[in-house]
Amino acid sequence: MNTSDSSKFPLVVIVGGGFGGLQVAKKLADKPVDVLMLDKHNYHTFQPLLYQVAMGGLESESIAFSLRKNFDSQKNFRFRIAEVLKVNADKNTIETTIGEIAYDYLVIATGSTTNFFGNKEIEKFAMPMKSIPEALNLRYSVLQNIEEALLKPSREEREPYLTFVLVGAGPTGVELSGSLAELRNHVLNKDYPELKKEDMKVYLVDFLPKVLGPFSDQASAAAKEFLTKMGVEVLLGVKVESYDGDEIKFEGGKTIRTKTVIWSAGVMGVVPEGIEKENIERGNRIKVDSVCRVIGTPNVFAIGDVAAMITDETPKGHPGVAQVAIQMGAHVGKTIIQLINNEPTAPFKYFDKGSLATIGRNKAVADLGKIRFQGFFAWLVWMFVHLISLLGGRNKVIVFINWVSSYINYNGGTRLIIRKFEREGLTEQEHLPVTVD
Amino acid sequence: MNTSDSSKFPLVVIVGGGFGGLQVAKKLADKPVDVLMLDKHNYHTFQPLLYQVAMGGLESESIAFSLRKNFDSQKNFRFRIAEVLKVNADKNTIETTIGEIAYDYLVIATGSTTNFFGNKEIEKFAMPMKSIPEALNLRYSVLQNIEEALLKPSREEREPYLTFVLVGAGPTGVELSGSLAELRNHVLNKDYPELKKEDMKVYLVDFLPKVLGPFSDQASAAAKEFLTKMGVEVLLGVKVESYDGDEIKFEGGKTIRTKTVIWSAGVMGVVPEGIEKENIERGNRIKVDSVCRVIGTPNVFAIGDVAAMITDETPKGHPGVAQVAIQMGAHVGKTIIQLINNEPTAPFKYFDKGSLATIGRNKAVADLGKIRFQGFFAWLVWMFVHLISLLGGRNKVIVFINWVSSYINYNGGTRLIIRKFEREGLTEQEHLPVTVD
Repeated sequence: MNTSDSSKFPLVVIVGGGFGGLQVAKKLADKPVDVLMLDKHNYHTFQPLLYQVAMGGLESESIAFSLRKNFDSQKNFRFRIAEVLKVNADKNTIETTIGEIAYDYLVIATGSTTNFFGNKEIEKFAMPMKSIPEALNLRYSVLQNIEEALLKPSREEREPYLTFVLVGAGPTGVELSGSLAELRNHVLNKDYPELKKEDMKVYLVDFLPKVLGPFSDQASAAAKEFLTKMGVEVLLGVKVESYDGDEIKFEGGKTIRTKTVIWSAGVMGVVPEGIEKENIERGNRIKVDSVCRVIGTPNVFAIGDVAAMITDETPKGHPGVAQVAIQMGAHVGKTIIQLINNEPTAPFKYFDKGSLATIGRNKAVADLGKIRFQGFFAWLVWMFVHLISLLGGRNKVIVFINWVSSYINYNGGTRLIIRKFEREGLTEQEHLPVTVD
Repeated sequence: MNTSDSSKFPLVVIVGGGFGGLQVAKKLADKPVDVLMLDKHNYHTFQPLLYQVAMGGLESESIAFSLRKNFDSQKNFRFRIAEVLKVNADKNTIETTIGEIAYDYLVIATGSTTNFFGNKEIEKFAMPMKSIPEALNLRYSVLQNIEEALLKPSREEREPYLTFVLVGAGPTGVELSGSLAELRNHVLNKDYPELKKEDMKVYLVDFLPKVLGPFSDQASAAAKEFLTKMGVEVLLGVKVESYDGDEIKFEGGKTIRTKTVIWSAGVMGVVPEGIEKENIERGNRIKVDSVCRVIGTPNVFAIGDVAAMITDETPKGHPGVAQVAIQMGAHVGKTIIQLINNEPTAPFKYFDKGSLATIGRNKAVADLGKIRFQGFFAWLVWMFVHLISLLGGRNKVIVFINWVSSYINYNGGTRLIIRKFEREGLTEQEHLPVTVD
C-alpha cells in the first residue's frame, strides 16, 4: 500500500483505534501530515462499558463508534481494516494483512488482551472480556446456561449452570459481579419463574487480600461491603489452580462446580512481531522513552496499555487505564509535529484525574486524589463521566435511555441470545426428556 | 418434558414467538390453560424493520424483544429455547431439541424462510434476510465489500464489490434498495473519501413487470419513480438464471458483475416433519380449515406464513404479512378456549387494514383500502405504524431516536462490523500490496 502518490506530507501510521490511537489522529488534524489508521475493527470500543454489554444492559452498538464516521471531516485521515503482522523498524515499513506499508512515523496503539499467564486449560474454558465479540459471547453463554439449568431435573444438576465465578477483583470483576448479583436479585425469578434467587450464586475471587487493588483502602472496603450486601461471595487471598469447564480448583483444595468462569485477572500488551526482545517489559509491554518512543528508534512510538515508560517515578510504568492512553496519545501527536518542525520535545507527564468504579444501582466508589467518596453520589459521578466520554451524540442518548429505563424497571436491558455461543468440546448435547416443575 | 405435574389444566404448546405465536399466548392469559412457547431464539423479531438492521440504520437489539420479559407477568406462560423436530399428531406429542413434549393443543406458528426455489448455487452465494443473524451477516458483508473495494487498484476490479443486486421487488427488496441508494447518495463519500457516489451501483430486479406486486398500480408506479430518482436501476420482467458469487446471469444473456446478491424473491413455510404430505400447499404451507386447524386433526393449528387457508374468497390463501399472523393468532387463542368450553367456534375472517412500504427519506406508499397516497405523508404514517407496533417502550424510544438522528444527519446509524462475515470458499485472501490514490 502506497499513499505517497497523493501527497508529499510525511505519513503517520497509527495502529489501533482505541483511546490512545484516537487522540493521536485528532492532534494531527489540519497538520502537514497524512494520517493512516489501521484497526482490525471499523469501530472504536468504549471499553469501560463493555461489562454492560456482556450483562445485557446495553446493546453492543451503543458503546462502539465508527472510526470512519468519527473522522469524516478530517481531510488528512485515512482508515483501513487491517492487522499488523510485523514491524520492520530498520526499513520503516510494517507488514499487514492488507500488504506492506511504508511509514514516516509509526504509533503502536494496539492495547492489551487477556493474560491467562500461560495456563492453556483456563484459556480454553474461561471467558475473557476485552472486546465486543467477547462481551457478546459472555452474554450469550450466561443466558444459555440459565436456559440449560431449566432443563435439568435436579437442583444438584442445575447448580453448576447457575454458579458464576469471576476471577480478578479489579474494576471489571467488581462491575461484572455486581451486575450478575443484580440479575440474580431483580430479574432471575421474573424472567425464569421456575428459578428462585437462591438458586444462583456469584463468586468474586482474587489472590490479593482486597478488591479493587489499586484503589484506596476506603474504596476497597466500601466496594467489598456493597458486593457482600448484594449477595456476592467475595473470596480474597485465594489463588486459582485449574478450571476444566466443570469445576474450578483453588490452592489449598477448595473447589466450586461451575460452567462459567470469567477471567479478568490480568492483561498483557498486544505486541506486533519485529520489536526487539530486550525492549519487551513485564506484561508484554514495549519499553518507551520519555516521549513514548520505542527505545532505539527515532520514529516509532508506543502508547497506552502496550507501552511501558519506566522512570524513577513510575518504576512499573503507568497503570493500564484509558486516561494514560488518552494523555499519551495527545502527547505523541504533539511530539510528532515537533519532530517534523525540528522543535524541542517535552517529556510525557501523566496527570492522574482519579479512579472510579461502579458496583451497581446507586453504588460506586470514587478516588479523586485526596477526595474519596462512596455510594450514591459516586455513582452519579461515575455515570456522568462515562456518558460524556462516549463518542457520538446518538450513543450518549441511547445509553442514557437504557440507564433510565433500567433504573425505573429494575429489569431493563436486552437479554437476547442473538447468536448462540458454542465452544468446541464444551457443549455436549445431552438433552433428554426432563421434568420441569 | 412434562408439565402436567404442576397443573391439571390442558397444555397449549405454541411453536414460534413471531407475530402469530405472541397473539395466541396473549389471548390465553388468565384462561384455564397452561401455555408453553418454544422458539429457537429467546426473542421476538420485529421483521418489518429487519432491513434497517441490515443497512446499519438500527442496532439489532432495538427490533428484538425478550419473549420471557414480554410474558413476565403472565402466570400460565412458560418458555423454552427449542426447535421442533417432528409432530406426532396421532399421539399428541412433538419431538424437540429438548426432548419429547405432550400437548393438549398445538399451534404451529413457525413462519417462513427464504425460498431459493431449489437453486443450490444461488442459495450458496446469495444473501437471505429473514432473521436478525442473517440481517447482521448482510450488513457486515456489504461493509466488508466496500472496505475490500478500497484495496483494489483499478476501477474495473473495484466494480463488483460496489455493485449490489436485489432480487425480488416486494417491500423488502424495495426497502433495501432504497436504503442502499441512500447509503450511496449521502454516506459513501463521507465515510470513504476515496470513493465517489458514481462508483456504487444498486439494481432492483424482478421477474414481474412491476415493483411491489400486490400493491395498487398507483403505489407501484410511485415506488418505481422514487427508486429511479434515487439512482436505483430497476430491471423488471427479468428472470435470474444463475449466480456464482461473481456474476449474476439473467434469462436472455444479460450479466452483472457483483459480489452481493440479496435474495428476497420468495418465501416458504417452515413445516416440521410429521405433517401429512397431502396437507402441504404451494409455498410449503400447511392446509388449514376455517378455524386454522390442520386438516384432519382436532387439536393442531397452523397460523401466519406457514398456514394456507384455501377458500373461495382466498383461493391462494392469505398474504404472508404480519397482520394475517396477528389476526389468526388472536382467532386461534379464542377458538382453543371455545373448544375447551364446548362452545361453538367461528370461522376466521381476515380484515385487511391495508399495506405500507417505505422507499426512503420522506418517501413511502400507502394503500389503505380505497385510500391511496404516496410521499411524505405516507412516510409519516409508515413510521407511526411501525413505531407503535414495536414491543417495549425502550425499543420504541431507541428506534425513534435513531430515526431522528438519521433524519437530521443524513448519516446516522451504526455501520459497524461487529463480527466479520465469512462465507466458506468465497473469501479468497488475495491481498497484495496495492496503490490507493
